[in-house]
Amino acid sequence: MKGKFIVIEGLEGAGKTTAREAILATLQQAGIDDVVFTREPGGTPLAEKLRQLIKYETEEPVSDKAELLMLYAARIQLVENVIKPALEAGKWVIGDRHDLSSQAYQGGGRQIDAQLLQTLKNTVLGDFSPDLTLYLDLDPEIGLARARGRGELDRIEQQEIAFFQRTRRRYLELVQQDPNAVIINAEQPIEQVRADIQSAVLNFVKNHQ
Amino acid sequence: MKGKFIVIEGLEGAGKTTAREAILATLQQAGIDDVVFTREPGGTPLAEKLRQLIKYETEEPVSDKAELLMLYAARIQLVENVIKPALEAGKWVIGDRHDLSSQAYQGGGRQIDAQLLQTLKNTVLGDFSPDLTLYLDLDPEIGLARARGRGELDRIEQQEIAFFQRTRRRYLELVQQDPNAVIINAEQPIEQVRADIQSAVLNFVKNHQ
Repeated sequence: MKGKFIVIEGLEGAGKTTAREAILATLQQAGIDDVVFTREPGGTPLAEKLRQLIKYETEEPVSDKAELLMLYAARIQLVENVIKPALEAGKWVIGDRHDLSSQAYQGGGRQIDAQLLQTLKNTVLGDFSPDLTLYLDLDPEIGLARARGRGELDRIEQQEIAFFQRTRRRYLELVQQDPNAVIINAEQPIEQVRADIQSAVLNFVKNHQ
Repeated sequence: MKGKFIVIEGLEGAGKTTAREAILATLQQAGIDDVVFTREPGGTPLAEKLRQLIKYETEEPVSDKAELLMLYAARIQLVENVIKPALEAGKWVIGDRHDLSSQAYQGGGRQIDAQLLQTLKNTVLGDFSPDLTLYLDLDPEIGLARARGRGELDRIEQQEIAFFQRTRRRYLELVQQDPNAVIINAEQPIEQVRADIQSAVLNFVKNHQ
């Protein structure tokens, strides 16, 4: 049987690491032990080098289109060399971000033309998409305060607050249209967030066994 | 007055460096001194880092689509940060490769879907294109023998000969449809190649002054 691809999405400081641990624990309780983690951008040798360029390039301004193309280069490399082979081998994959991040950050935050984004997604990824997306929703002010508490912010995290508000709006629009996505209220106490994630994952597993 | 964008295209060992010198000398004779050189992939700090990944990534197989997306990321970065500003400032730009290389190598050589290539070109570059393209045509066997004489071949240059034959065929198909392109027979003695380039450039300058 083929594995499943579960993706965690959300703004900086939304609690993606906590979510990853909660998903893993839930899958293990359900008897699913063969789990692979990925993060985007990154997750392969080439994709990690692209991640460095995307997040930390400082020698010159990065054009919005160049950023988007590097994100898709890293993504297709990860999908073809890691995610698809793992799923074919029956492993479950837990992804820290995937395509929805580009739709939300580049489409919403940077306001890149929706037609361009849709075209890129279709031509690069075809019909490949997550089996379950958990979107951790919270006010960007709260998330950024948490992320700042952890140290330096990267090139994208240094955007103004309006950027993140646009990103959140786009996340919500897209997640509400996606039958494979669940919204988790990430402003709740961490134990409640964990319980909501557990419940969403258990529900998904029950429907796919 | 805006500057003009002249691009040199051709297989490995076709004589692009010689062509560049011949174009520069011809422009100078015509009184055009403000000339900028670019090379692709590369030509900006970020694009040069992408060039390294495109040409020398060895830790894992590079997916055809990832290669193509990195090429376009490097290209739009160069176009937006270097080529367009130079042209706006009235400078002439001599480019060692541009979009036609992707059409020929990735479309012809790697046989990437023509629709995908066309979509990427249109969405990334819009209507930006060279004012004059000089395509140095030669049998790939001859070009590769010359390139090998210069030392190590990179990841793309290590393809089998059929790859370069497909690349040449695509070059010829596209150049024959392009009213702004001139085919130079690069199998001729170098002095004749130089003379043909000079003549094509002088003709172009005459029609654009």
